[in-house]
Amino acid sequence: MKNPKHEVPIVVIKRLPRYYRYLSDLAQHGISRISSAELSKRMGVTASQIRQDFNCFGDFGQQGYGYNVKHLHEKIGEILGLNKSYSLIIVGAGNLGHALANYAGIERRGYQIIGIFDNDPNKIGTKIKNISVSDIENLESFCSEQQVDIAVLAIPKGEVKEITSRLVSAGVKGLWNFSYSELETPEDIVVENVHLSDSLMTLSYKITNK
Amino acid sequence: MKNPKHEVPIVVIKRLPRYYRYLSDLAQHGISRISSAELSKRMGVTASQIRQDFNCFGDFGQQGYGYNVKHLHEKIGEILGLNKSYSLIIVGAGNLGHALANYAGIERRGYQIIGIFDNDPNKIGTKIKNISVSDIENLESFCSEQQVDIAVLAIPKGEVKEITSRLVSAGVKGLWNFSYSELETPEDIVVENVHLSDSLMTLSYKITNK
Repeated sequence: MKNPKHEVPIVVIKRLPRYYRYLSDLAQHGISRISSAELSKRMGVTASQIRQDFNCFGDFGQQGYGYNVKHLHEKIGEILGLNKSYSLIIVGAGNLGHALANYAGIERRGYQIIGIFDNDPNKIGTKIKNISVSDIENLESFCSEQQVDIAVLAIPKGEVKEITSRLVSAGVKGLWNFSYSELETPEDIVVENVHLSDSLMTLSYKITNK
Repeated sequence: MKNPKHEVPIVVIKRLPRYYRYLSDLAQHGISRISSAELSKRMGVTASQIRQDFNCFGDFGQQGYGYNVKHLHEKIGEILGLNKSYSLIIVGAGNLGHALANYAGIERRGYQIIGIFDNDPNKIGTKIKNISVSDIENLESFCSEQQVDIAVLAIPKGEVKEITSRLVSAGVKGLWNFSYSELETPEDIVVENVHLSDSLMTLSYKITNK
C-alpha cells in the first residue's frame, strides 16, 4: 500500500469515513466481496469515483472480482488511523457534553474518554459514565499527569478563547470543536470543527430548492 | 441575480454556509467592504475560488472595489433560504435533544421549534425551553394539526426506521438526522445527516498524518 501522507487530496480523505461506515455494515451482514458498481449503487456515488478514490491508496481490488470487503475495511481504517488509540477529555459537562460522553461511537473509533471538566460547582463531582466531572481549575495539573491527545470543546462561545489557549499550553494535540466559533490555534494543533449551523443552512437550502 | 436552482454544484453550496458565517462576523465588526484577497486570507481559501464561487450566483463585486459585505451576506442568506421560516420538531428528549433544543443557532437560522417528542414516561410532560415534551404516540395527530417542515432525529439507531416512516407518512418535508444511520426515504424528502463518527475519523486521520 502506498503511504498516503502528502499525496491524497483532502476531498478524498473526507470521503473515507463514509466508505468505512458502509464497509462496516457490509462486513456485519456477512458480505465478503463487492464490486465498485454495487457499492456505487448503495452509496449513491459513481463507480468511477469509487475506483479513483481507492486508487489513491494503491490497488484494493482485482478487475472482475470486486473488492475484498474485510481487507478494504481494514486498510481504510489504517489510513484513517483507527488502529491507534487516543486519549480524550471533554470540556463542558452540559447537555452536549453529556450527549457526547454517552456517544458509543467515540470509544468505537479508538478514543478513550479519560476526563470531563466544567466550571459549574453543581456539576463538579457528579458522574457521567463513571467519570467524575473535574473542576476546570485542575485542567493543567491533569494534563501534566496524563497524556491528553484530544480535547472536545462543548463550551459556550464566550469561553472558547481562554480554554483553547489553556489546552494548547497544556500540550493537547487536537481539538474537536463544537463551540460554533473558529479557533485560533498554532499550526501544529489539529482542529476538527462540527458546525451544526452550517448543516442547518444546507438543510434550508435543500428545502428551499427541492 | 441568477436563479441558482439546478445550476450550482453541490460543492459550492456546501461552502456557502461558511462564507455566510464569515460575512456575519465582518458585518458585526462594522466592516462594510472586503476584497476577495482579504477574505481569502481570513478564510484560508484561495481568492480565485472565492471569485469563482460567487460568480455562480451572479455579479457580487466590482473589480477593484471588493465586495459589499452587507449585500453579499443578504444575497447568500437568500440563496440558502434563510429569509424564510420553517417549523421544526425534535424527536428524542435525551441529552442530545436537550442540547439541540437549547442551541440558539436553530432559531437564528429561521427555524421555530414547535414540538419535542419522546417515548419515555419520565420525560413526557417535562419542559425544555418552555416546550412540554409530548408522547411520541401523539406525533401523527400533532402533524395533522400543525404544519411540520423539519424533524430532528435525536433518537437511538434502533428506533430510526419506524420513526422515519411515521414522520414521512405524517407529511414532514425534511429530516435533520443525528441518529448515526443512513435513512431510507422517498426522493422528495430532504435529508441532512450529521455523522459525528465521520468527523471523529477525520480527526484521527489528521492526528495520525500531521
